[in-house]
Amino acid sequence: MNIRLYNARILTMESDKDIFRGEVWIKNERIAYIGTNEDILDAGPAIPHIKWDFEIDCGDNLLMPGFKNAHTHSAMTFLRSYADDMPLDEWLNNKVFPYEAKLSSGDIYELTRLAVMEYVTSGVTSIFDMYINLDAVAEACRDTGMRCVLCGNVNDHTSSPEKMAEEFERLNEFNPLISYKLGMHAEYTCSKKLLDRISKVVHKYKAPFYCHMSETKKEVEGCKERYGMTPGMFLDSLGMFDYGGGIFHGVYLTEEEMDVLEKKDVSVVTNPGSNIKLASGIAPVTELVTKGFNVAIGTDGPASNNALDMFREMYLVSTLSKIRDNDAVSIGADKVLGMATIGGARALELKDADILDTGKFADIILLDMHTPNMQPENNIVKNIVYSGSKSNVLMTMVGGKILYHNGVYNIGERPEIVYENCNKICERILG
Amino acid sequence: MNIRLYNARILTMESDKDIFRGEVWIKNERIAYIGTNEDILDAGPAIPHIKWDFEIDCGDNLLMPGFKNAHTHSAMTFLRSYADDMPLDEWLNNKVFPYEAKLSSGDIYELTRLAVMEYVTSGVTSIFDMYINLDAVAEACRDTGMRCVLCGNVNDHTSSPEKMAEEFERLNEFNPLISYKLGMHAEYTCSKKLLDRISKVVHKYKAPFYCHMSETKKEVEGCKERYGMTPGMFLDSLGMFDYGGGIFHGVYLTEEEMDVLEKKDVSVVTNPGSNIKLASGIAPVTELVTKGFNVAIGTDGPASNNALDMFREMYLVSTLSKIRDNDAVSIGADKVLGMATIGGARALELKDADILDTGKFADIILLDMHTPNMQPENNIVKNIVYSGSKSNVLMTMVGGKILYHNGVYNIGERPEIVYENCNKICERILG
Repeated sequence: MNIRLYNARILTMESDKDIFRGEVWIKNERIAYIGTNEDILDAGPAIPHIKWDFEIDCGDNLLMPGFKNAHTHSAMTFLRSYADDMPLDEWLNNKVFPYEAKLSSGDIYELTRLAVMEYVTSGVTSIFDMYINLDAVAEACRDTGMRCVLCGNVNDHTSSPEKMAEEFERLNEFNPLISYKLGMHAEYTCSKKLLDRISKVVHKYKAPFYCHMSETKKEVEGCKERYGMTPGMFLDSLGMFDYGGGIFHGVYLTEEEMDVLEKKDVSVVTNPGSNIKLASGIAPVTELVTKGFNVAIGTDGPASNNALDMFREMYLVSTLSKIRDNDAVSIGADKVLGMATIGGARALELKDADILDTGKFADIILLDMHTPNMQPENNIVKNIVYSGSKSNVLMTMVGGKILYHNGVYNIGERPEIVYENCNKICERILG
Repeated sequence: MNIRLYNARILTMESDKDIFRGEVWIKNERIAYIGTNEDILDAGPAIPHIKWDFEIDCGDNLLMPGFKNAHTHSAMTFLRSYADDMPLDEWLNNKVFPYEAKLSSGDIYELTRLAVMEYVTSGVTSIFDMYINLDAVAEACRDTGMRCVLCGNVNDHTSSPEKMAEEFERLNEFNPLISYKLGMHAEYTCSKKLLDRISKVVHKYKAPFYCHMSETKKEVEGCKERYGMTPGMFLDSLGMFDYGGGIFHGVYLTEEEMDVLEKKDVSVVTNPGSNIKLASGIAPVTELVTKGFNVAIGTDGPASNNALDMFREMYLVSTLSKIRDNDAVSIGADKVLGMATIGGARALELKDADILDTGKFADIILLDMHTPNMQPENNIVKNIVYSGSKSNVLMTMVGGKILYHNGVYNIGERPEIVYENCNKICERILG
């Protein structure tokens, strides 16, 4: 499928490029050409002729790389607005784990499709999804067209190091949209024996490793009691991050931990919405950036957030950093937009999905600039981060396929069917 | 104009009513009838015949009272994304006041129209607007159809007690959509002499009084140095709140101040987005609610927020309270939705714009329930507050007039004209 996106403003997210007026040409799943209107006029006949399947007038709106939702549990849509206003441990043990155990793989498939619909309405083109049945997640993402990095979910109750190894080999070959990373739930849900076995798999594949870490004070204190070390120092002592990887949350990190993890090229995925809703805390994003960490942004699951909206998360990363640091200068819009795109791509090891350039994946969104919240145009990047909204998302394209355009979904199913099926799952499981 | 809204779910915001399926009938600017589908079937021929100008199928989506944006400076749209990432005093003195001084009344009219467009996209049906030229604001709201309570803006540099008194008499009679409240900018921008003269006007009209108060630590410290009292105690000692009124922000309040102000029936308008972006702090909303205060919610101006989006503010009131209190139970969705509707109406003294009921103003919004962020329907009120978005606003009606419907504005001007004019104002003033 060959698509021409013309009459656009373009923000490539390459660090040395300003927004320019031009076109993006897409051949199958990748960008074949990107240039200014002047480039195209100058090159003229030298540009190879392409027969277009679609030519889309972008109406002088903004094309940019889609957002990478670098930490989520998509299928938790079934718990949205079911268990709110309670602390993390109570919520997890009484409201999450018991009901999750009742989900069939068909349920997870359907609940993930609902999440994908929400992702595309907020300009998300890749997700990093940790869940109890990753085959069902992979199938839902393949069928809807969402790019998905699956994250291993080993803990004392679900999955196992062996299953993780098997999934690593199989799901990395499953579909071009899908990849798989080694991972576990968290230190506090894995016994020491299990952690040792997980570490062996990490070293067998010499692959980066991901997990929840240092989300709450209680978790950190628990780890210190169990092992005499903070979670980062403890997991590092097991060699978990010998090939890099990432941690989700990282709200409570010591200087020592940060120094060690940064040297191992560990990304930190911050989840500000989830962290404030569960009263967990505010992550030290300014310190992380100063230390040189790659920082990415995630929504976390819809049971704790409860939206899957990267605009809200971007706004929160900046404003919560300001309030945490007591400094209105902290973490400006440019930096946040980088985290949500390039930072996410780096954390997920999606090197072809970071910026808009020839040869990169056509993971592109079109943002409406002709709405009151994006006017006047004193600074477009600030408009996106500080007053932008999912209501500005006109189009979301993943791998050259348009999944959402002008309010219409192209995910292989009618929206009302997905809603109906998900409500039925809730009735059955939550009663 | 007679309008029938049918096939709806209805949330009246009356405390004892659950969401029901029914209809709302509007005669001119007020609600003529509201009832369940069963009521209507039962009553049958007993219901008076009305000739409809419009009958709107609500598609089983949700009708509810529009949001009251209880503190804003609409015309500051011209500074959106112009001066970000700096602390309040620097921002106010170097980036706000000097440029505001250059605005003509025509500029303020146009910049307010842009804000009204943004309000209607986020379901706002009333605003409480403090600005330097309130005639221009009143005209813009009258012409676009927005309900607006104007707030006096006396300070050492603009307006005066005499002007406030004149405006109070004149602008309260200007138009059915417009009312006017006595008010000043803040203690720290008014000399003691000026404050005494303002207090005289308050006592002449025996009317409620409104101002910014206790927004930053620095402001509170300054007031204590100047007068040996916190701002609330000091302003109360001048009798400013003898007839009630409200304060904007209230981030730093002592127990003593809270006790005094609550007894005077002073509302507190919280502006969480602005307070975190300027690193001012997080208001003690839980304490205010516990003390029995009427709490309302405002966006503050678009220069400090930068969006005029009540969904974002509602979400922030709840989640920031949780993080401030270190308690995930703090300020649930029900309470927040009440603040954004009933609480706002009470603060603004718009007694006919609080709930949906016969005889009340038809200030109504229609929210799309058939979107992924509003599914599944475990709890609709929580869905609105925790995962709702301005993208869910299908229709905004003020006083029986539809101002926004399915993405189309009905505000007396073409959107592109407003955008163009506002960008020209920015070019002229900001260069």
